[in-house]
Amino acid sequence: MRFLNKKYLFTPGPVSVAPDVLLSMAQPITHHRLPEFSEILKEIRENLKYLFQTQKEVYFFASSGTGAMEAAIVNLFSPGDKVIVVVGGKFGQRWLELSQTYNLEPVVIEVPWGKAVKPEEVEKALKNNSGVKGILIQACETSTGVKHPVKEIAEIVKENEAVIVVDAISALGVYELPMDEWGLDVVITGSQKALSLPPGLSFIAFSDKAQVLAETSKLPKYYFNLQKEKKAYEKNTTAFTPAVSLLIGLKKMLKRIKEIGLERLFKHYQTLSLACRKAVSALNLEIFSEVPSESLTVIKAPEGLNTGELLKFLRNKLGIVFAGGQAHLKGKILRITHMGDQSPFDLLIAISALEMGFNLFGYPVSLGKGVKAAEEILFDYIKEKQ
Amino acid sequence: MRFLNKKYLFTPGPVSVAPDVLLSMAQPITHHRLPEFSEILKEIRENLKYLFQTQKEVYFFASSGTGAMEAAIVNLFSPGDKVIVVVGGKFGQRWLELSQTYNLEPVVIEVPWGKAVKPEEVEKALKNNSGVKGILIQACETSTGVKHPVKEIAEIVKENEAVIVVDAISALGVYELPMDEWGLDVVITGSQKALSLPPGLSFIAFSDKAQVLAETSKLPKYYFNLQKEKKAYEKNTTAFTPAVSLLIGLKKMLKRIKEIGLERLFKHYQTLSLACRKAVSALNLEIFSEVPSESLTVIKAPEGLNTGELLKFLRNKLGIVFAGGQAHLKGKILRITHMGDQSPFDLLIAISALEMGFNLFGYPVSLGKGVKAAEEILFDYIKEKQ
Repeated sequence: MRFLNKKYLFTPGPVSVAPDVLLSMAQPITHHRLPEFSEILKEIRENLKYLFQTQKEVYFFASSGTGAMEAAIVNLFSPGDKVIVVVGGKFGQRWLELSQTYNLEPVVIEVPWGKAVKPEEVEKALKNNSGVKGILIQACETSTGVKHPVKEIAEIVKENEAVIVVDAISALGVYELPMDEWGLDVVITGSQKALSLPPGLSFIAFSDKAQVLAETSKLPKYYFNLQKEKKAYEKNTTAFTPAVSLLIGLKKMLKRIKEIGLERLFKHYQTLSLACRKAVSALNLEIFSEVPSESLTVIKAPEGLNTGELLKFLRNKLGIVFAGGQAHLKGKILRITHMGDQSPFDLLIAISALEMGFNLFGYPVSLGKGVKAAEEILFDYIKEKQ
Repeated sequence: MRFLNKKYLFTPGPVSVAPDVLLSMAQPITHHRLPEFSEILKEIRENLKYLFQTQKEVYFFASSGTGAMEAAIVNLFSPGDKVIVVVGGKFGQRWLELSQTYNLEPVVIEVPWGKAVKPEEVEKALKNNSGVKGILIQACETSTGVKHPVKEIAEIVKENEAVIVVDAISALGVYELPMDEWGLDVVITGSQKALSLPPGLSFIAFSDKAQVLAETSKLPKYYFNLQKEKKAYEKNTTAFTPAVSLLIGLKKMLKRIKEIGLERLFKHYQTLSLACRKAVSALNLEIFSEVPSESLTVIKAPEGLNTGELLKFLRNKLGIVFAGGQAHLKGKILRITHMGDQSPFDLLIAISALEMGFNLFGYPVSLGKGVKAAEEILFDYIKEKQ
């Protein structure tokens, strides 16, 4: 029942989508080989370059973000290729699983969940292992809310034959991550994060260095074959049937992002994440992430509180949907997105729900104290907009 | 631009409409003479009786609320009929204008804007004027946020030949107003208030006493002729083309209201209005209304502040839409709805915007203090829901 119990989606993917974007995707279905669709595709390709801050082509698939991760693996590598995998959360593990699935030879850098990898660890692993073909890493590890230092690592990798493959699914569009300037060889994202679209689209771009490596790749690939997509782009179309309605939404959101400008967008996420962290501190709660990403705020559960029950209550009774922890963090953390169709005001709802929830679950926090702390940060932001 | 600057409608009509209701009205248009539409009409008629708490038929028009007010006048009265008109705001004035338009003989009870009429004043006017045919009043005067004591007045009118005609446009569905039990002779409402629908539908119901009076009415009427509608209802249809898509939304909302139940609905409005008034007090601001309605909260502007500019800023820069004052209250008050598709959490956004706006306009209020006060009331409400 919506009335009296509206739903608020604060999960770090899927995220809320603006009503006008949702409606644009509810238009009658068009055909992807029509001339007017080529025009849409042209605009999308151009604006994806702006989002990725690259001169290279950005390709997309009808798939979840994992699809583009798999595309990176199968297009770049050959069986037995050595790759360094940074594993500091569920999505680092996904890189590892993909490497194992395709018989690569992974060198794992284990990072405690909640911590960021140190660039020196990557440097050391590169030195200790000859012939490494790639570094597989997350820009933001969504399961822990941690930002890995991809800029510094890219700097290290630059002089090496290895490529740096960045899963930027919950990072691109949230904070500075200029592909060309930083020398990121492969950048991947998904539609259901900073693009504020429904899930169903993944994106990938290759640097020249990655392109060269791809030419020698011997792994089998059909749907995720970037050579096919490249040829199709040359004819201003796609290799397979694209998700036409999602692309209509994508066109709208990319245009919007360009109009807003990346700088303002990053400022927006900085403000929301700072306000949320201030609120968490004001409530004497702890941030789980050592180097917190602007994409989401991850809160450590106080001793004895299983967040699973709290999340269920917030979801079922108050209509507020946060995310919990994954794998061994299940029940131990609580994750709040800053991505999606959110205004600064929406954050106040999230924090108020948090305050009420903790109180109701026997962890008394001062009602209104977190909201006040957040409001003060948001107020400064709003003052600038005046 | 929605993203980064969402819109929040906090005006006391039109009000926000739930997305699923909006979508239901975006279905392909149906024809109003089809058998399936008669089924829809049947359900609507039944559920309108629940909302009005009456055994009588409730009629509707494709019109704004004013249409049903005019319907009351032209169906009940004859030229030269004496009516007592309670004028304590813009909508009281509307009763007066309608009476004058149709050459009735209005006896005006002037009530200072922001005050409620005293039942004794109506009693006195009835004694001092013989042959009064009707009392025209608002249950809630939307322009001032005041509740008039219609229950007590109905009690007085009961023994008289006059009927009590209640404009309950911003009252019905918000708080207790049982038509049959209280002996309200005519009750009027509109779609864009507690029904949480778009504007475009008005509603009217007549008691037996009103029906008898209607039989002698000599005023001309065509579109707003209730006899025509009565005959059409007997054939399970409407006299003229009804607003089919709005009726689809109405069907959905009436069903929802019945499922929620009036008692819970009234509790919801009590909570929101109480929380808002507590916030206003915590910020040392003043409530304008002497007897505040649960439908909206009306705040008096501090000396020297023109609310027009503040509202414009909130609207254009923060996407928060409040209403200002009408007629001589222009610039002097600020009105916040509690009607529409609102959860308790949405109120926190309204109050936070209020806090930020007052601060930015040189009226420093303590940031977060109002939100905290509101949150405390909402927390008690939410605790009950656990």
